[in-house]
Amino acid sequence: MNFKVVFKIVGRVLTMEGIVMLLPMLVAIYYGEDVWPFIIASTVVTIAGMNLACINASKDFYIREGFFTVALIWIATGVIGALPFYYSNLFPSFVDCLFEACSGFTTTGATILTDIEALPKGLLFWRSFTHWLGGMGVLVLATALIPTIGIRTKYLTQAESPGPVFSKLVPKQAQTSKILYGIYCALTLLEVICLKLAGMPWYDSFIHAFGTAGTGGFSNMNASVGAYNSMAIDMIISVFILLFSVNFAIHFLLLTRRFKDVIQSDELKFFLVVVVAATALICVDIRHLYPDWTQTFRFAFFHVCSIISTTGFSTTDWLFWPYFAQMVLIILMFCGACAGSTGGGMKCSRILIMFRVIRREIHSIIHPRSVEVVKLDGKVVEEKTVRSILTFIGCYMMIILFVTLIVTIDNLSFGESFSAALTCVSNVGPGIGIFGPAGNFSSLSSLSKLVLSFTMIIGRLEIFPILLLFSPSAWHRS
Amino acid sequence: MNFKVVFKIVGRVLTMEGIVMLLPMLVAIYYGEDVWPFIIASTVVTIAGMNLACINASKDFYIREGFFTVALIWIATGVIGALPFYYSNLFPSFVDCLFEACSGFTTTGATILTDIEALPKGLLFWRSFTHWLGGMGVLVLATALIPTIGIRTKYLTQAESPGPVFSKLVPKQAQTSKILYGIYCALTLLEVICLKLAGMPWYDSFIHAFGTAGTGGFSNMNASVGAYNSMAIDMIISVFILLFSVNFAIHFLLLTRRFKDVIQSDELKFFLVVVVAATALICVDIRHLYPDWTQTFRFAFFHVCSIISTTGFSTTDWLFWPYFAQMVLIILMFCGACAGSTGGGMKCSRILIMFRVIRREIHSIIHPRSVEVVKLDGKVVEEKTVRSILTFIGCYMMIILFVTLIVTIDNLSFGESFSAALTCVSNVGPGIGIFGPAGNFSSLSSLSKLVLSFTMIIGRLEIFPILLLFSPSAWHRS
Repeated sequence: MNFKVVFKIVGRVLTMEGIVMLLPMLVAIYYGEDVWPFIIASTVVTIAGMNLACINASKDFYIREGFFTVALIWIATGVIGALPFYYSNLFPSFVDCLFEACSGFTTTGATILTDIEALPKGLLFWRSFTHWLGGMGVLVLATALIPTIGIRTKYLTQAESPGPVFSKLVPKQAQTSKILYGIYCALTLLEVICLKLAGMPWYDSFIHAFGTAGTGGFSNMNASVGAYNSMAIDMIISVFILLFSVNFAIHFLLLTRRFKDVIQSDELKFFLVVVVAATALICVDIRHLYPDWTQTFRFAFFHVCSIISTTGFSTTDWLFWPYFAQMVLIILMFCGACAGSTGGGMKCSRILIMFRVIRREIHSIIHPRSVEVVKLDGKVVEEKTVRSILTFIGCYMMIILFVTLIVTIDNLSFGESFSAALTCVSNVGPGIGIFGPAGNFSSLSSLSKLVLSFTMIIGRLEIFPILLLFSPSAWHRS
Repeated sequence: MNFKVVFKIVGRVLTMEGIVMLLPMLVAIYYGEDVWPFIIASTVVTIAGMNLACINASKDFYIREGFFTVALIWIATGVIGALPFYYSNLFPSFVDCLFEACSGFTTTGATILTDIEALPKGLLFWRSFTHWLGGMGVLVLATALIPTIGIRTKYLTQAESPGPVFSKLVPKQAQTSKILYGIYCALTLLEVICLKLAGMPWYDSFIHAFGTAGTGGFSNMNASVGAYNSMAIDMIISVFILLFSVNFAIHFLLLTRRFKDVIQSDELKFFLVVVVAATALICVDIRHLYPDWTQTFRFAFFHVCSIISTTGFSTTDWLFWPYFAQMVLIILMFCGACAGSTGGGMKCSRILIMFRVIRREIHSIIHPRSVEVVKLDGKVVEEKTVRSILTFIGCYMMIILFVTLIVTIDNLSFGESFSAALTCVSNVGPGIGIFGPAGNFSSLSSLSKLVLSFTMIIGRLEIFPILLLFSPSAWHRS
């Protein structure tokens, strides 16, 4: 492991994050609030980052260095993201700040705050801005902004980008990152304008656009999107959530008018089928709770979009729905959004490939000597990738069970603990019981908060970069 | 698919089961109870079976016919097992009888009865005897007893025997089946004698020995093993449960004095480590509930053995334990016993191989060009088997989620519904909430009962034989 180059890159990203912290400071100045939390945090982070960035390192950089760097950067990002909260003295403890920052950057949206509206606007801006930064990825941003230091950056973005297969839009990585952030910025701005037109104040529009774009779910309102009680706002957010949940390669194909390739996307079709089916099932189950089909559809569709995209916004406390409708949402938490989007979960393409592998397994019993391949979008999926996907799914379940076990030390029921583990590893936000849409994570012990914060990062980086940190052989210098 | 030979074998096994039903009839005669339920059921089944067995069939018999036959036989066995219950008129409906019979044959031990002690002794004997028949497998019994019809019976026993790899003890299948049943009978008898010496009546000794041997869990007492409140009985049952939870090949190795091979068994070591670790964790967590460490150990050890073996006996209602201890038991429900035992769950060897596959995945990131194999007991596990195991684990999770969704239609909470699905697919018996050790499945709708009955068979046959039934290409005549 080439530790020097790892620390050098960590340093560069930290410097960038230190500078980015000045944006919420401007918001605090605008609203005449305390700016010191941002000034102190920004100074500390920038100085530390610049020191690391000056390390003289060789350019040996392979996939393991890529995974290692990404894991370290995300852990460091969680810690530095917590600094403005910590210096504000408005949070009960540093662990709470850390939980909130990890929840922000990993676009989970789970909170330990009991009264969000009591916080200053600058701090809430930072809280939601972390969603926006974490959604597309801090390293994708770094490779788009910072001039290359001559290493193969594809190993970095590969480790950070969600999904089983990593595809570049154009041959050059820096160019790909720029296109991705271009689409990302454009869609975010479009949503801000739409929300403003629908009657939201400018500030709230930005906050909710950040939450949607990163599929995070932090709101500046205690009642989340439900506070506005507007059909138009609900629908705008639902539609934008779907846009941010599909593979950004699809947007690129649309922009370059390759519609035929878009139609061929198996994952997109699967994702849309799941959204329609889940909405229909929930509509039928909750129809008796609402005055007409329109209102029923509005609430069902909003929450299906919110949960499958792993955003976690809510317009009502769906724990009052029948358990069947809740279970549909819980299944969506496992599934998650499309690969290459800003969403979390196991990703639709993995589930789809899993189904096809099961079908192949059955066929191999019927025709033991046949050799069948698994396909996606008409292309053969390599056996190595198939194996990696299956291992990922198994790992995912084991992590959920292990984290549930840790949370039960706080003597919370199986259902609640399991939902906390699931919602954190899938980067959703709300769970069931005290973790429901109207609840929060404040009552947990510090141990549970730390473990859940770490779980969010495990989920965001899709497990393997973090597992690598626990492998002794990854720490060898050679 | 050669349907004729499939039906011929189904017929032979049904005939055997019809005759076996005469054993509980003798018990009913001995206690002076109503014998008609057994006479009617036995006659119906035997006649139907003999008619099918007379079909003139070719001897084309391959793995797909094996899987298909086993799936059909187990579904048929569930139905015919329900007949004595049904003709007794003591059960609310046929669906309840079916649930109880499936629970018996699959060695689950979940019950819809609210007052077990009110039933006649003959009927309870049949109920527990199904555990004993299902534990080692009705087809293993059939291949041991019935003269061969010239087909490759290994495909049959392979589909029925639990575990990822099927190993014959001796070259001939019929001989292997006889050895397995020999060990099985000997251990069962030994347990009956031990329980009798510990103060249990003869009848109760047989009932509980059947429940232990098949790792089923049906008792003739409402309070299960707790009714005897005897340290000796608890310990005898715990130890025998462990004996029935290890691979029967281990017993064969011990009998033939190949101790070196026994020590090399990775699965056995893993299983024992899990038992010790789980017992220790629970002991620490529940210590404050019991007067001393001895009592604490007694209850912790009994329930760890009962759950990991997927038996489901209880000596106390462990839903009163802290949630952490409950969660340890829930994790054991996933894990299950060793392959080649009478226990259910995913099996220790699969979990162990899963861990090794994860380790390999991490290594392949560090050394992308290395080719690593997965080993068990010092031997290489074929890639095809690895793939099959990973697919199995993924399938297992999907089935649990799907069945949970069905059970939530009855408007039961996520935790309860999930535990019902888990306990049925793993063939354990008790779950949490209303399905706890002191509860039962009586309040469920017929739909849930049917789906859960089917889930038990899916779990007992380890998924693929049943999935095969849903594959259109399996139904082709060619």
